[in-house]
Amino acid sequence: MEESGRVIAVRPETLRAFIARLLTAHGLPERDAGTVAEVLVEADLRGVESHGSTRVAGYVSMIRLGLLNPKPKLEVLRETPSIAALDGDNAFGIVVAKHAMQLAMEKAKGAGIACVTARNITHTGMVGFYPMMAAREGLIGLALNNGPAIVPPFGGTTPTLATNPIAVAFPAGEVEPIVLDMASTMAAGGKLRLAAKKGMPVPPTWALDRSGLPTTDPEEALLHGFLQWAGGYKGFGLATVVEVLGGILSGGLFGTDVPPMKVFGKDPLISSALYMAIDPAHFMPLDEFKGRVDRLVRQIKSSRRAAGVNEVFVAGGLEFRRHAERSRNGIPLSEVVYRELSALADDAHLPFGLAEPDAR
Amino acid sequence: MEESGRVIAVRPETLRAFIARLLTAHGLPERDAGTVAEVLVEADLRGVESHGSTRVAGYVSMIRLGLLNPKPKLEVLRETPSIAALDGDNAFGIVVAKHAMQLAMEKAKGAGIACVTARNITHTGMVGFYPMMAAREGLIGLALNNGPAIVPPFGGTTPTLATNPIAVAFPAGEVEPIVLDMASTMAAGGKLRLAAKKGMPVPPTWALDRSGLPTTDPEEALLHGFLQWAGGYKGFGLATVVEVLGGILSGGLFGTDVPPMKVFGKDPLISSALYMAIDPAHFMPLDEFKGRVDRLVRQIKSSRRAAGVNEVFVAGGLEFRRHAERSRNGIPLSEVVYRELSALADDAHLPFGLAEPDAR
Repeated sequence: MEESGRVIAVRPETLRAFIARLLTAHGLPERDAGTVAEVLVEADLRGVESHGSTRVAGYVSMIRLGLLNPKPKLEVLRETPSIAALDGDNAFGIVVAKHAMQLAMEKAKGAGIACVTARNITHTGMVGFYPMMAAREGLIGLALNNGPAIVPPFGGTTPTLATNPIAVAFPAGEVEPIVLDMASTMAAGGKLRLAAKKGMPVPPTWALDRSGLPTTDPEEALLHGFLQWAGGYKGFGLATVVEVLGGILSGGLFGTDVPPMKVFGKDPLISSALYMAIDPAHFMPLDEFKGRVDRLVRQIKSSRRAAGVNEVFVAGGLEFRRHAERSRNGIPLSEVVYRELSALADDAHLPFGLAEPDAR
Repeated sequence: MEESGRVIAVRPETLRAFIARLLTAHGLPERDAGTVAEVLVEADLRGVESHGSTRVAGYVSMIRLGLLNPKPKLEVLRETPSIAALDGDNAFGIVVAKHAMQLAMEKAKGAGIACVTARNITHTGMVGFYPMMAAREGLIGLALNNGPAIVPPFGGTTPTLATNPIAVAFPAGEVEPIVLDMASTMAAGGKLRLAAKKGMPVPPTWALDRSGLPTTDPEEALLHGFLQWAGGYKGFGLATVVEVLGGILSGGLFGTDVPPMKVFGKDPLISSALYMAIDPAHFMPLDEFKGRVDRLVRQIKSSRRAAGVNEVFVAGGLEFRRHAERSRNGIPLSEVVYRELSALADDAHLPFGLAEPDAR
């Protein structure tokens, strides 16, 4: 969470119900509002607060400004047993993403592997949510999307790509699924803002100054500079792959043609995406596959530990632990987000009462 | 090239013919020998010398030691219109990889998307070669493979995964294809060996010492330490994805079950892989797709440049330039590799005469 200060413990089901009610009040069909609430609260539960209920105010603002279509007409541009291409009509990215992944999963069960593109959508929330849908059904899932042109190519200073996230999930048997959910950049903008607020330097691998050179000054990076790719040219290469599979193959906007976004909720956020599923049962009995994933996870977990490291984690492992802890103890909403939601409730003439009797 | 010193300019077609003849003498069917020669020389042409003719001596050693089966019986374990699973019978990884990608491409033309796994193969050479096959035919290609357990998980010190490369290529129209070909680690072992030889420190993002902490000392890293993942936990997450798609889905060895390799050519090198193809023509007219890729490449190339940068490159762009230069002027073979090949020619009672009349 970016903001320091007081936190309010909130039950996930209470938060989910409130967000769904609020979005319904802003014109979303009930089912879609439920989907958005589900994905946001899942992010909060996993500790990915940057993609949780902190986004609600921005989403509502986008609806009000006409930047997000609450009642879109989803168009199927192409469809075969193995692929589909969707046009989102400027819909909630989250709603289209879930639908597209579901479609890819159904097709993968038949064909073994399938993918579905979606163009003209908005913010897709926590990208790892969609491959996790696949993993829950014993499938391998992959999701990626492009977005506003804010990060320059490696060696350049013209904002050209988004942070271009990629997420993959694998079903396991006795252990939690493996869930990789990463941006192609090393750090998120939120981490820079937090460091700037504290007056702390950032690692030299996080950001670039205005001339495109690494900087440890978060202020310089935020005001005049850029995010840095993870692993330099390697992260840029991955982001390029995401740009082509998400932005180009979908028929959507890509590169510098995607309007840059300065302020979330106030500026257009146009994204295009690809969702892929593979059914391991087309390669071996599903239980065998899951058992093999379990074995790899156990090998990794039992690695000797580097100096100063308490535990070795598999991708997504820390998030599953947070999810369990927060499912028991509630989601620690920051006071800032709590007040945002409270103000949104007032605006929409909705009752507001997220906090537990024993909160704080 | 790792070795400093004299270089000998060699014509690619001469080098290709020699390698093919040599491998035929060591029991490879002519067609397979031609494939291996083609992939190795392509690596030399692209400036990826670490995966070029420097590998020939190791391959011959592996054949002699029974670590590589020159006359394998490739088995098709499963096959549908969208997927296939192959067992390589300890074959040349390069031969099986090319065959598997070809199969994935044919299936993708029918289904839109397809993938083929291959287990029990050896070194696959320059991984980018296979997706480039797809790009040449107007398809999107992806290749990845696991291998000997030499790199510990992020935060650990038990060697568990290989450098787990991933390669993707996209067809373009008027510009060169986009070709990402990267290891999940930040630097290759060869770069550490070169720095050690020169007595130079390496960047703190390349390697770890024996306790798993970043080190700039290449000697420590080579003798007691490890390679570092690109982008830390991000590279490790990608490597995990490669391990599951390559090692687990194929039914091959994975994780610490893959024998670690200390010396290339002397120790077993067992790998498993996945090859995927997508046909953009199932999504839009191929020319439209290619034109869109061209547009993205041009946007990237025309980025303002960071301080000290002369040119912004798209993934694979530098390699295409080297390829053009070396196709004209010959491949600069190091004296070490030249002598290795010469000795192999003597051993096999083959004539040897790679150098051009005007070679230095």
